[in-house]
Amino acid sequence: MKNLIEKFDEEKILKRPGFLKILNNELSVLEENLTSKLIDNDSLLQGIVTYIFQAGGKRLRPALCFLIAKSTGGITSKHIKLAELTELIHTASLIHDDIIDSSKLRRGKETINSLWNDKISVITGDFLFAQASIRLGELENTEIVKIYAKVLSDLCEGEIEQYSSKFNTDISWEYYIKKSTTKTASLFAAACKSAALLNNQPDKVVKQANDYGLYTGIAFQIVDDTLDFTSSSKDLGKEVGTDLKQGIITAPALYAINSNDERAKQLKILTENRFSINTDNYEKDFDKAIGLVHELGGCEKAKQLANDYIFKAKECLEFITNTELKTYLIKAADSIFDKIR
Amino acid sequence: MKNLIEKFDEEKILKRPGFLKILNNELSVLEENLTSKLIDNDSLLQGIVTYIFQAGGKRLRPALCFLIAKSTGGITSKHIKLAELTELIHTASLIHDDIIDSSKLRRGKETINSLWNDKISVITGDFLFAQASIRLGELENTEIVKIYAKVLSDLCEGEIEQYSSKFNTDISWEYYIKKSTTKTASLFAAACKSAALLNNQPDKVVKQANDYGLYTGIAFQIVDDTLDFTSSSKDLGKEVGTDLKQGIITAPALYAINSNDERAKQLKILTENRFSINTDNYEKDFDKAIGLVHELGGCEKAKQLANDYIFKAKECLEFITNTELKTYLIKAADSIFDKIR
Repeated sequence: MKNLIEKFDEEKILKRPGFLKILNNELSVLEENLTSKLIDNDSLLQGIVTYIFQAGGKRLRPALCFLIAKSTGGITSKHIKLAELTELIHTASLIHDDIIDSSKLRRGKETINSLWNDKISVITGDFLFAQASIRLGELENTEIVKIYAKVLSDLCEGEIEQYSSKFNTDISWEYYIKKSTTKTASLFAAACKSAALLNNQPDKVVKQANDYGLYTGIAFQIVDDTLDFTSSSKDLGKEVGTDLKQGIITAPALYAINSNDERAKQLKILTENRFSINTDNYEKDFDKAIGLVHELGGCEKAKQLANDYIFKAKECLEFITNTELKTYLIKAADSIFDKIR
Repeated sequence: MKNLIEKFDEEKILKRPGFLKILNNELSVLEENLTSKLIDNDSLLQGIVTYIFQAGGKRLRPALCFLIAKSTGGITSKHIKLAELTELIHTASLIHDDIIDSSKLRRGKETINSLWNDKISVITGDFLFAQASIRLGELENTEIVKIYAKVLSDLCEGEIEQYSSKFNTDISWEYYIKKSTTKTASLFAAACKSAALLNNQPDKVVKQANDYGLYTGIAFQIVDDTLDFTSSSKDLGKEVGTDLKQGIITAPALYAINSNDERAKQLKILTENRFSINTDNYEKDFDKAIGLVHELGGCEKAKQLANDYIFKAKECLEFITNTELKTYLIKAADSIFDKIR
């Protein structure tokens, strides 16, 4: 077990992007709580949980939560709990998703189901969800309990929709955006909205905080979906084109399939035939499909779509009077696009 | 899918034991909500969820919740939600446990992981947990949120402890009772305690309601563990001796292993050697071990232990002045032992 666990690296904290530097203290407390304070006895899960939280992750959701808190009155101890439970739910859902999608790699590291097994992944995910619930109870705020209950329900819905619509090339844009919302943006929105709620902000501010998180989250998902086509295996930390291979139709493929070009039909057929799975043509067909997504401009259009959502997110920030904090939240939204620029 | 789903059988309701007859209305509402109102669209999960809740189950936890509510001021709409969320958490945890234990049968029916697969089981369990969270939010009671967050944490802890202590014959009685509490009794206690809390009962009554649920739950687990040795496959709805086969040491085996008899050592060695797994002796060794548990009086002593906890549970009912309701709660506790009598 030991050689699987990296020594905790303070350097990581120091390498945070500029707009996160003002959160160094809060993010360090969060890191400490997630890595070493989550389990107090030497159980089976101790090593696994340490492995998970030291595997990286930019803590973007906690960072947005802290920035909204700072912009609406300040970061309280309840905001630390809120940020923690948000990251716990995010992580738990990734672990369970990796079982559902049979994923072997995440962020360039082996997944829990790959390193251990599906059973351990089920327990670990459930454990992290339970830890999130404990923090949710400690917030003593029934409105936030309702918000996060809806997030959990959305996460399942998103996963079910994705599972049910595999290799369905007829999905609509409405369906894709809804799935991106339930699977991803709902949690971003919850973190931002709840951060404002904890600071007793008026309804208008709470709504804008929510929408900033929502649009940022949708942009995040579109960028993530686009990177699956444009990134290298090394940068991606997993195989390129994993989504399409599994039949998950995301923005770049959806643009390509719906484009006004003869080759769109070809891509549609290749995908519906599951790239002639179980035949010698499989790799060739799959590479052809990936090529068509690029040729038909799917990735460029998806980038534009992500950019549109980032623009919408930034439009929600009028409630913030502090120029410095507003700049940080703008940079936070822009940072999502940076990965793909 | 259709032929997997039994037509909803009103008869089932009419066959409820006598002490549950006064709850016919509430239990029917619960049944309706769990089977047909849980999913409002025709998703992948519709058929699965119907299959699960029509597979049976006595709704003992909701029944105890309703009886405590009736004894402390009456059943409100919030108690219906409380009963529902309790059954949802119970069911979700069974579905995830069946993945962890690779169980093929439950209550005489194939498990979700066996009929569908582990991936579907993960999503289904998560979906039911999310539905429970939504109802928990609707109760608008932060104390109950904390109680159920602890239950979720306990359920994981119980499952982890069980997973970690397989084939360990040195576990203590304290460990066994603690595991039975976290795995089972914690949810019973939460349902009873929260039912009293929703009726704004004084601390003393809330504590007694909690303890009634706690002791009833421990007794329930001991009886369940004993039936694994004494019941027939047909009555059990699964293979006999499943726990011991998997290395889970429960009350009957623990009594036998710790008995002052030469054969206790033999049982210990057989178990630690995992019944010579992967050899021709496996079935013979396993049958020998089961025989020794019986010969050494493990089952009789376990029955006595369950009875002791039922006695303790009934001692907690002094707060109830209504003789009829008190009798029902006594019968509810006794009903746990009836299965094994």
